[in-house]
Amino acid sequence: MRPYLKDPAAIYAESFATVRREARLDRFPPGMARLATRVIHSCGMIEVADRLAFSDGAFEAGETALRAGAPVLCDCEMVAAGVIRRTLPVGNEVVVTLNDPRTHGLARELGTTRSAAAVELWRDRLDGAVVAIGNAPTALFHLLERLDDGWPKPAVILGFPVGFVGAAESKAELAANPRGCDFVALRGRRGGSAMASAAVNALAAGLPEETQ
Amino acid sequence: MRPYLKDPAAIYAESFATVRREARLDRFPPGMARLATRVIHSCGMIEVADRLAFSDGAFEAGETALRAGAPVLCDCEMVAAGVIRRTLPVGNEVVVTLNDPRTHGLARELGTTRSAAAVELWRDRLDGAVVAIGNAPTALFHLLERLDDGWPKPAVILGFPVGFVGAAESKAELAANPRGCDFVALRGRRGGSAMASAAVNALAAGLPEETQ
Repeated sequence: MRPYLKDPAAIYAESFATVRREARLDRFPPGMARLATRVIHSCGMIEVADRLAFSDGAFEAGETALRAGAPVLCDCEMVAAGVIRRTLPVGNEVVVTLNDPRTHGLARELGTTRSAAAVELWRDRLDGAVVAIGNAPTALFHLLERLDDGWPKPAVILGFPVGFVGAAESKAELAANPRGCDFVALRGRRGGSAMASAAVNALAAGLPEETQ
Repeated sequence: MRPYLKDPAAIYAESFATVRREARLDRFPPGMARLATRVIHSCGMIEVADRLAFSDGAFEAGETALRAGAPVLCDCEMVAAGVIRRTLPVGNEVVVTLNDPRTHGLARELGTTRSAAAVELWRDRLDGAVVAIGNAPTALFHLLERLDDGWPKPAVILGFPVGFVGAAESKAELAANPRGCDFVALRGRRGGSAMASAAVNALAAGLPEETQ
C-alpha cells in the first residue's frame, strides 16, 4: 500500500497549509480567517470561504462570550459531539435540548419541527450565548422569530443549517437581518454539524497549532 | 419574515423530491440509490452522487449484516451521534473506540494517530461488521493495512473520511482494492460524519418516508 502521513502534528500542519495555499482568505479580518480556516478544514471544501457571510465583530463577540462563560447552544447532538471540550476556555456548558422530553409536545403544540421546538427551551440561557446551528433550518428560522418577539439576544449565531428546504433561505434571512446579533453563516444549501462545531472550536481556541 | 415549511413530513418530502429531481441516480442499483439519496440529503450537495464509488452488493451486504445483528463501528463520536438508533433493526451496538483509555498509548506505540489506533480495538468485533468512517483518513488506511494482515473482514466499509491529507488517497485505495469487502466511498476530499451516518441510516431503514 502507498505510504501515508501518520504523525498528527504533520497532518494538521499540511492540512492547514493546504487551506492557506488554496483558499481566498484575504477578505477576512484575522479572527474570521481562523474561523474560516477551521470550517474549510472540517469539510474539505476550499470554496466555502467565498460563501461565508459574517458581521464585523463576530469572531471577537464569540471569543469574548466563551471566555465569560457563555453556554454553547446546539441544535443537535452531532454539533455537540464535535465541540472539543478541553479547549473551551472555562468548561462552558454545551447544551442540546432536541431530545428533551418536552420537545415532542412543544412541537405538536406549536405546529413545527422538534428542532424548532427545542429552541423554545433555550430562552433562559440565550442571553449572551453562543448559538451553533448545524442541521435544521427550522431551528434558525424559529430563533429569528423569537428574537423578533423580544427574546434575549445571543452573543453570536453560527448559522450552518444544511439541505434543500429552508437552509439557504434561513441563512439569507439571518445575514439580511441579524436582529442585532453578531453572526456567521454559510450561504446556500451547504452546511452541517461539522462546520458548526468547527466554528465553535475556532472561537474557543483559534487554530489547532495555537493550542498544541 | 418570509413564510417557511414547518411540517416535518412536508420538509422530508420536498427535500427528497429535490434530490430525485436534480441528482443523477440512474447508474445506481435500487439500494444504492436510496443510500446515495440519504448521503446527498445529509450534505446538501447533489453532485456527490457522481463521485460515489461502490461494490455491486454493498447495500445488500450492509442491510443483511445489520439485520443479523452486526455492530456499527464508527471512527468518531460524531458518526455515532448521527446514527438513528430507533431504526437499527435489532438494537445493533454502535461502537466508538476513539476515546477508549487504551487508544492514546496504542497510538504512541504504533507511531500513528489516535484514530488509527482506535481501529486496533475493533478486531474482536470486525467480522461481518458495518464500518463507518466519517472523519479520519488514517483510520481507513489502518483498517486496510490490518485487512492485509489477515484480520477478519467487515461486511461493508462505508468510507467517508474528509479533508486535505489522505482522504482522497485512502478512499482511492479502498475503491481500487477493497480487500474482499463490500464498500461505498465518496471519492475526493469531501466526506464527513454526516454522510457516514446517513449511509448507515440508509442501510438500516432505507429512506425516511419508508419508515414513517
